[in-house]
Amino acid sequence: MSSKPSPVSPLAPASYPDLPPVAGVRLATAQAGIRYSGRTDVLYVGLEAGTQAAGVFTRSKCPSAPVDWCRDALAGGSARALVVNSGNANAFTGRLGREAVALTARIAAAAAGCAEGEVFIASTGVIGEPLPAERFEGVLADCAGRASDGSAAWAEAARAIMTTDTFPKLATREATIGGTTVRINGIAKGAGMIAPDMATMLAFVFTDAALPQAVLQTLLAEGTGRSFNCVTVDGDTSTSDTLMLFATGRAGHAPVGQAGDPALAGFKQALDDLLIELAQLVARDGEGARKFVTVRVEGAESDASAHRIAMSIANSPLVKTAVAGEDANWGRVVMAVGKAGEPADRDRLAIWFGDVRVAVEGARDPAYSEEAASAVMREPEVEVRVDLGLGAGRARVWTCDLTKGYIEINGDYRS
Amino acid sequence: MSSKPSPVSPLAPASYPDLPPVAGVRLATAQAGIRYSGRTDVLYVGLEAGTQAAGVFTRSKCPSAPVDWCRDALAGGSARALVVNSGNANAFTGRLGREAVALTARIAAAAAGCAEGEVFIASTGVIGEPLPAERFEGVLADCAGRASDGSAAWAEAARAIMTTDTFPKLATREATIGGTTVRINGIAKGAGMIAPDMATMLAFVFTDAALPQAVLQTLLAEGTGRSFNCVTVDGDTSTSDTLMLFATGRAGHAPVGQAGDPALAGFKQALDDLLIELAQLVARDGEGARKFVTVRVEGAESDASAHRIAMSIANSPLVKTAVAGEDANWGRVVMAVGKAGEPADRDRLAIWFGDVRVAVEGARDPAYSEEAASAVMREPEVEVRVDLGLGAGRARVWTCDLTKGYIEINGDYRS
Repeated sequence: MSSKPSPVSPLAPASYPDLPPVAGVRLATAQAGIRYSGRTDVLYVGLEAGTQAAGVFTRSKCPSAPVDWCRDALAGGSARALVVNSGNANAFTGRLGREAVALTARIAAAAAGCAEGEVFIASTGVIGEPLPAERFEGVLADCAGRASDGSAAWAEAARAIMTTDTFPKLATREATIGGTTVRINGIAKGAGMIAPDMATMLAFVFTDAALPQAVLQTLLAEGTGRSFNCVTVDGDTSTSDTLMLFATGRAGHAPVGQAGDPALAGFKQALDDLLIELAQLVARDGEGARKFVTVRVEGAESDASAHRIAMSIANSPLVKTAVAGEDANWGRVVMAVGKAGEPADRDRLAIWFGDVRVAVEGARDPAYSEEAASAVMREPEVEVRVDLGLGAGRARVWTCDLTKGYIEINGDYRS
Repeated sequence: MSSKPSPVSPLAPASYPDLPPVAGVRLATAQAGIRYSGRTDVLYVGLEAGTQAAGVFTRSKCPSAPVDWCRDALAGGSARALVVNSGNANAFTGRLGREAVALTARIAAAAAGCAEGEVFIASTGVIGEPLPAERFEGVLADCAGRASDGSAAWAEAARAIMTTDTFPKLATREATIGGTTVRINGIAKGAGMIAPDMATMLAFVFTDAALPQAVLQTLLAEGTGRSFNCVTVDGDTSTSDTLMLFATGRAGHAPVGQAGDPALAGFKQALDDLLIELAQLVARDGEGARKFVTVRVEGAESDASAHRIAMSIANSPLVKTAVAGEDANWGRVVMAVGKAGEPADRDRLAIWFGDVRVAVEGARDPAYSEEAASAVMREPEVEVRVDLGLGAGRARVWTCDLTKGYIEINGDYRS
């Protein structure tokens, strides 16, 4: 597959953060030659003994072999190595796929000096092709030998896992637990929620906090609900979506036993912020995206109902093409509210683009200025807000516009 | 709004049928100047006394004013006139919308010499703009005076209701009830299921059969499940979708009291065929469509489950862009099966493009020829078939590919 250099998304951040070390985490990348040439395609992360892991995975009924592996390995709770490759998703590969995962784990366990069940694995890239895992032989041991905790290693890690991404995605936060500073670093890839072929969403978060697996899993699941589950590019769901959180426990703070412990308030906030930042970076790199869109829904019967309506708007091809065309087409927003199937009263709806209220009480706002609305639509970041006027339910989700670039990226012949 | 002439869809039929008269149905079109200039934008259909009506409508929670009107009017059961305008959907227009519908009914009732509750109304076009129904004054009476049952009147009717459609949609069938020949004529518009702005799906079917309303409603609902509910362009749902069936009773056959009466077998088959033909014409005119796609799902746990999986495949932007790119990308089909949330076993899946089996037992078919699959994808009509290997449930749906043309049509500035 040729790595046709695609221009960086216009929604990419102006600069990328330098990630500080997270005690107990060391990273290295390599060229294993899985599919790409001339770029790194494998990330090895070594985790010190005692690291706890949590994960959330695709809801697909046809998950990839690495997703099956990680779900099983999480039962052990302990993590010593993470291996991520790009170029081949090892999805829908049957028996060969299970064998490739097992071989990868065996090679990584030997490199890390740990049990195979302490190795976590993620793969992204083409689907249905056998993964030549034997190419990791030697490569992972070499990575383990030179893994480092410097900011360059983090930056290289974020690049090695990219597929159709146009920029690397990194974020970092600090918090305190019981007066002790802890760090959280995260990397992600994905240019959609999304495409199983080349745009699976993967994210890996690392902290030196000392938290039991049950606490990690709770925090991660809650944070996902406010971040990655609030972002969509095209409504398609990968067979391989993987979000993992690793805690090395090296920060040396006082023990915390419950997710609800007040000592975790700052950590939870920092983790949520980091997950939201990574999720938004994915939407900003949505395939072909030219505009970043925030959809807010208020006044719904419940938060869950608001979320479903917001996702209906964010996933509507007609809303997304209107945004691409810088068209303040609120009729399409009404359509998307109506098709969500959630409680809604046409005659109580109000709709805003940015600060411009374009519709109220089920009809065009008499005071609405097309000029003002058009000015909002010309911005690179657009907010669509709907008030249903029924209750106190609210939600916020993020997406991007739907452009010819999306068709180009996804309609090309496989090569 | 400029009527930029768009080229006719490459999937349009080579010719359009000449529709024969249906006794008791007379049609006329006119230029009411609702929004377009230089083309007809209103259709008037006069129906003889005794005509029974049935209808199915959008499931949107925010239906248009005409949809509300028709639902109410159906309670009366009798129909004497149908008025359809293009250019303005009269949707999300609040009190003004209800007034516009009432005024339209008043004008049409005067023209037809009937009660207002015997008038049915449908509107398609821009949303959120007040409909200047006073422009129907004089126009509908003139239409009633010159309405005719000739094939030219049917052809003009199909054209007057078009919006972004690139070709008119007409179909006709004959059947016998108790030895008497009956006719069914239908017209439709829609270039998507779909867009509330300009691509609402409307279809009107007329027969001279003599059938009570309850029978008509049952036949129409069943037929819709096998036709219009099996077609999708982009998964968006209009606020105005309307499908109505009118029976004038002029054919003079023996009375039929129940939808299950064996005397109706031929009529049901003919009606279903006609509805499927019209529904397929809508998919063939999907905005930007270059390929007509049939999705078959077999081996599901139930027909309903098969239908949901088929719609998940047919609505997937990634599957649709792959078809546009003539890419036999079965990984995306696996993705779409997986995200449907229906029972599926990855390791039992088999997938075909046309007659070429590309995947079997959860992995690439070892005998699969990329060349043969590519040849299938280059055809203007492509069949995607999935066997889940679980049960006897099956479904068949139709869609089109997703191209840059779709983005162009829907991403243009409103003018």
